[in-house]
Amino acid sequence: MYLGNEAWPDLETYFEEESLAIVPLGSTEQHGPHLPEATDHLIAEAFAREVADRTGYLCTPTVNVGVSGHHRQFHGTMWVEPPAFREYVASLTRNLTYHGIDRVVYVNAHGGNVPHLREVGARLRQDEVAYAIEWMWNESIPDLVDELFDQNGPHGGPKETAMIQYLHPELVHDDRLATARDGGVPSVEDAGTQKFGSRTFYDAADNTDNGVLGDQTDATAEKGEELFEAASEQLVRLCEWLDEQRFADLMPNEHV
Amino acid sequence: MYLGNEAWPDLETYFEEESLAIVPLGSTEQHGPHLPEATDHLIAEAFAREVADRTGYLCTPTVNVGVSGHHRQFHGTMWVEPPAFREYVASLTRNLTYHGIDRVVYVNAHGGNVPHLREVGARLRQDEVAYAIEWMWNESIPDLVDELFDQNGPHGGPKETAMIQYLHPELVHDDRLATARDGGVPSVEDAGTQKFGSRTFYDAADNTDNGVLGDQTDATAEKGEELFEAASEQLVRLCEWLDEQRFADLMPNEHV
Amino acid sequence: MYLGNEAWPDLETYFEEESLAIVPLGSTEQHGPHLPEATDHLIAEAFAREVADRTGYLCTPTVNVGVSGHHRQFHGTMWVEPPAFREYVASLTRNLTYHGIDRVVYVNAHGGNVPHLREVGARLRQDEVAYAIEWMWNESIPDLVDELFDQNGPHGGPKETAMIQYLHPELVHDDRLATARDGGVPSVEDAGTQKFGSRTFYDAADNTDNGVLGDQTDATAEKGEELFEAASEQLVRLCEWLDEQRFADLMPNEHV
Amino acid sequence: MYLGNEAWPDLETYFEEESLAIVPLGSTEQHGPHLPEATDHLIAEAFAREVADRTGYLCTPTVNVGVSGHHRQFHGTMWVEPPAFREYVASLTRNLTYHGIDRVVYVNAHGGNVPHLREVGARLRQDEVAYAIEWMWNESIPDLVDELFDQNGPHGGPKETAMIQYLHPELVHDDRLATARDGGVPSVEDAGTQKFGSRTFYDAADNTDNGVLGDQTDATAEKGEELFEAASEQLVRLCEWLDEQRFADLMPNEHV
Amino acid sequence: MYLGNEAWPDLETYFEEESLAIVPLGSTEQHGPHLPEATDHLIAEAFAREVADRTGYLCTPTVNVGVSGHHRQFHGTMWVEPPAFREYVASLTRNLTYHGIDRVVYVNAHGGNVPHLREVGARLRQDEVAYAIEWMWNESIPDLVDELFDQNGPHGGPKETAMIQYLHPELVHDDRLATARDGGVPSVEDAGTQKFGSRTFYDAADNTDNGVLGDQTDATAEKGEELFEAASEQLVRLCEWLDEQRFADLMPNEHV
Amino acid sequence: MYLGNEAWPDLETYFEEESLAIVPLGSTEQHGPHLPEATDHLIAEAFAREVADRTGYLCTPTVNVGVSGHHRQFHGTMWVEPPAFREYVASLTRNLTYHGIDRVVYVNAHGGNVPHLREVGARLRQDEVAYAIEWMWNESIPDLVDELFDQNGPHGGPKETAMIQYLHPELVHDDRLATARDGGVPSVEDAGTQKFGSRTFYDAADNTDNGVLGDQTDATAEKGEELFEAASEQLVRLCEWLDEQRFADLMPNEHV
Repeated sequence: MYLGNEAWPDLETYFEEESLAIVPLGSTEQHGPHLPEATDHLIAEAFAREVADRTGYLCTPTVNVGVSGHHRQFHGTMWVEPPAFREYVASLTRNLTYHGIDRVVYVNAHGGNVPHLREVGARLRQDEVAYAIEWMWNESIPDLVDELFDQNGPHGGPKETAMIQYLHPELVHDDRLATARDGGVPSVEDAGTQKFGSRTFYDAADNTDNGVLGDQTDATAEKGEELFEAASEQLVRLCEWLDEQRFADLMPNEHV
Repeated sequence: MYLGNEAWPDLETYFEEESLAIVPLGSTEQHGPHLPEATDHLIAEAFAREVADRTGYLCTPTVNVGVSGHHRQFHGTMWVEPPAFREYVASLTRNLTYHGIDRVVYVNAHGGNVPHLREVGARLRQDEVAYAIEWMWNESIPDLVDELFDQNGPHGGPKETAMIQYLHPELVHDDRLATARDGGVPSVEDAGTQKFGSRTFYDAADNTDNGVLGDQTDATAEKGEELFEAASEQLVRLCEWLDEQRFADLMPNEHV
Repeated sequence: MYLGNEAWPDLETYFEEESLAIVPLGSTEQHGPHLPEATDHLIAEAFAREVADRTGYLCTPTVNVGVSGHHRQFHGTMWVEPPAFREYVASLTRNLTYHGIDRVVYVNAHGGNVPHLREVGARLRQDEVAYAIEWMWNESIPDLVDELFDQNGPHGGPKETAMIQYLHPELVHDDRLATARDGGVPSVEDAGTQKFGSRTFYDAADNTDNGVLGDQTDATAEKGEELFEAASEQLVRLCEWLDEQRFADLMPNEHV
Repeated sequence: MYLGNEAWPDLETYFEEESLAIVPLGSTEQHGPHLPEATDHLIAEAFAREVADRTGYLCTPTVNVGVSGHHRQFHGTMWVEPPAFREYVASLTRNLTYHGIDRVVYVNAHGGNVPHLREVGARLRQDEVAYAIEWMWNESIPDLVDELFDQNGPHGGPKETAMIQYLHPELVHDDRLATARDGGVPSVEDAGTQKFGSRTFYDAADNTDNGVLGDQTDATAEKGEELFEAASEQLVRLCEWLDEQRFADLMPNEHV
Repeated sequence: MYLGNEAWPDLETYFEEESLAIVPLGSTEQHGPHLPEATDHLIAEAFAREVADRTGYLCTPTVNVGVSGHHRQFHGTMWVEPPAFREYVASLTRNLTYHGIDRVVYVNAHGGNVPHLREVGARLRQDEVAYAIEWMWNESIPDLVDELFDQNGPHGGPKETAMIQYLHPELVHDDRLATARDGGVPSVEDAGTQKFGSRTFYDAADNTDNGVLGDQTDATAEKGEELFEAASEQLVRLCEWLDEQRFADLMPNEHV
Repeated sequence: MYLGNEAWPDLETYFEEESLAIVPLGSTEQHGPHLPEATDHLIAEAFAREVADRTGYLCTPTVNVGVSGHHRQFHGTMWVEPPAFREYVASLTRNLTYHGIDRVVYVNAHGGNVPHLREVGARLRQDEVAYAIEWMWNESIPDLVDELFDQNGPHGGPKETAMIQYLHPELVHDDRLATARDGGVPSVEDAGTQKFGSRTFYDAADNTDNGVLGDQTDATAEKGEELFEAASEQLVRLCEWLDEQRFADLMPNEHV
């Protein structure tokens, strides 16, 4: 069920019977010459809505702008500073609990949001307010991702390309896939992000000219569909698992 | 132009030539038994995208959750606390200036956001970072609103109903319009929001049973279209006016 | 009773028997060529003390500097940024509850403070700490204000002029009333504060040369007295109404 | 010159010619059974206004409520938490610099405000925004204070009593001076505030029954006048000294 | 050179000639039944001091308590909340730049600090204040770590055990190594930290009984020495590389 | 017992039986040409560890960098801004209470930390979280300090010199003691820190050329030992006294 489409009386039963919410979060940031800036929030929204439809769990509207300062050198990247993002998401989540929600899945499609969602989730759990966890689709099906692509990216690479080819083909510049590959960096290793054990890079512009990695020509809408189906299934299972837990079991352990 | 659909190289020309951005903001909150919780952000998004299409100015993705704590007693209302909202919007806006944006129209469809957008805009202007102003569609065509409806609401009333009937008819429960009217409050005056000069109410639940005001049966999709056209025209003019100004003229006056 | 004049043992009975406090707040900011910068806090203090005397409710000392950044271009305007004001007032109010106060009237005479007092009051109520509401004298007697003046201002206009003529005649430059009128702006409408539905102004200096609006020559001390008496009566009634309420009835409604 | 009484055009010359402001700050807190809660802010205001009158320097309205949480157990004590106080004073001071003020004397009559005024002043100086220093009247004439009283208090003791007897005799309960003495603590030493080198007390209620120290019967209005004259003279000199300094000389030294 | 041991005049030459500082950071938290709670800050300090000795670069005192809330269920774990940690480290680092430092290596031995050091470093770089990067010894020699141990842990595992056996043998309970292994979890995989792509654990107590992972009996002081030598060499190279860079080259790239 | 050296199971008994922790805090800042920058944290650590050894109370690792911005003009002074220091210490202390600690002695050797530790302690006590008090060694034995030295400093003077001569003789430049004295300021009075009752100085560099006060040639390791023994004894007694108190008796008094 999508919260945004419902009138308030029609939500009463849900909150009486269920306590889980799915919150999609993404980013609006450069994804190379071939993909739209909305890529991450479109992917997050697609998974969240799909799984809400399949399972009946409640899906909220999407947080469209996240922590993307590291992509700022490319036209159009939007971002908020980390404390603003954390406060916004924490406040939004705390307030969901007013309606009886006590477990939340952040369906997130932007790596830059992860540590901040983890921090928010840890805080909410430590305060015993809610159990909120983040989910990234590619983390749920690592073997399939590896199997489908030689160089999966990550950022703006073939796996994200395939996903948008499947979900929003009209937004992909298919004629620029080779350009994307040739103007980018083959892999994280090639990007040279570490020196002597230290992550010496901060921005995507530090080591890529066009902002993306991997071989985009390896992407197809069919692969996108396969990924979407497989990861959606994982998210369904996560929601079901979460729903089955007793709230007390989701809360922190006692002091030893 | 909608930023979310563009790949970064395709935005270069815009930022070279223009410095205006349209940022839609709304809320996700109860709008009575007949309207969807997304009402405000759907309206904001519709105006922002329409005017971006007509004028070519850049429209960003929408901020879907705003300051709606005063509607929290009704199922499904989502909200963030005011400081979180201000920080999020201020950070998002400051960062737009990194690409050369120096004037922003917050296309806002939720009254509860207004003082906070004003505070953010005042801060950004005082710091000479950007000139950001908020726009509410109904404020731009007050005479037409008054002419079309006897009791326009405001919250969840006929003017918002008509707008969603026009924009997203499938999301309106047309069979509940009389219920909405009969279970709500005819007008702000009837709501008794003031006592001896003091605004003594804080929450919608303080003076309405179903969260809405006005006579919803007075709404039609045709009226919605008329409102949408008229207000869009106003927003077009606002953007054009704003674009014509010199940045220095938008900045604060000197000390006398 | 005025808290500032009392020794602590003499307050014991009050706190045992009553739970209401009156907190005056104003500003120190330009009020045109004819009125003192203290105008707003003098008016707030006068109402608060008068009503405390008439009713026996407790009045605290005055918060003299408020949110007046929009008047900063005129010599001598003092102000604090909105977050500092909110924190100061919220902390002061929370701490009053330590003595048993659970309802507060902010007798406020500066429009720029209003959204911030509303935000503080909403927070305190949501936390079930106290019920604090703001009161503006002119909001309590709108018909009388309209009746007495053709163009009442608002800022530095005849209604504020009349009030200071009555309360502190020595602080009014009566010989500058025509100058004030001629160098200012007749009305808010003439000030052109809106464009196409957007409030495009932020500072008083954006649309007035001398900082004030309305026809100051229309003011007299007699009108000031009439206004003061009428609004004081309203404030008395507000305090009495507030005192009669059960605390639970002042707190937020339950979730529907 | 008192800023609150002036119309803005009459302040122009001052800001052109001078750059010093006197800001009075006090507290509203218990001062024993014999003195009013306003004691500290009345004293601060009296010194600030007097010296402004004598010298022509600009005096602002008073900050009436300060950091007094340590007196909260006694009826009527008002206070704000330290961060709120610092933010309020810092913001107020920074904004004074907009008019050309670059040196500020905080005429403070409450010991509990001192470390916070020092912190604010250090910050403003480190940022090279302003040179703001705090002044306590009794610190300026320690020998005279010692000479006039055997046990001067400090809090609510004979030196503060004498000051209010002189400035506001109607607010002193002269018939309770012996009660104040007998129900209080003779001296800081007697209060036992330290144990083995650690300040083990936090609140006035930890070691006094009525909130005050010293022998209040030793106070007279004549002593109050003598103290007021002597300390006013010191404050005049401080302002004159400060006025004579070059701004650069008031700013921090360079790195060695 | 160790800053703590020097008198200020003896540091003048360093700051004239160099602009690099090494800042050790660790944690004070449970490291199983066999290792001291100081483990992480002892390791960080050892590397930082050793490399400062070898190279002559400046090493500061150690930040001993970090972000370890996820180990709180075990006796003695100390921690600060993430915002406090970030503010403390950011302030400390910004202030180092006052002496001319513009590049900092955070020699960090606690994984829980990493995202926060990255956030601080990104902020400082975005503000063009300093280039600060974090270094973890095990990240610099992944192959050697893998070669020496079958199951390296990470937390409280054989690689940390070996390191303390080498650096502070008196602090290791060698008689508890088998207990540590048997009461803990063999590997991160065995700990079951993920479900369907989501990291579902927050605390060490969620999936370990004694707080540690890996086979501690595989550790020896000799292996510790080998690791220490190898990683020290990497840190030396990192410092040398960093020292060679032009400051401008360390700062963010321009907008494309 | 030193927490850092213990494995977590070995702390269980302590937390079952005791509720007191000793937390050493100092600074890293210039202490003249003869003393190391670590002076204050070395002294704090020495007292804290010694007394922990003598009494069995738990001592934590040291907070090495404090509020020392007023020494920043001298090479190598490290510092954090006051809010960062307070947050760090408050968070660290609150989290100690998770293990059952409810009383804390901040063994502090840096005057600049004192008001901030007092503020943190007052907050924790007001919240009834813990009773935390600061202890400065020299405050515990004022008579002995006065007896041993004509001019004890304070900063970088003979009492601190003697202490480091005793604790870490290798870190004292004994050949620079006369230089320290001759290039510094004999006493606080000579430093001219006050003008007409106002503390007009903010930085050590405002009134000393080499950063120190007093006659350093008066220091010997023997005097250092005598001071250390005497003050350690005081700290032992403080801990014992604190341990004997009922927690309720350490908490704030009720409202009168």
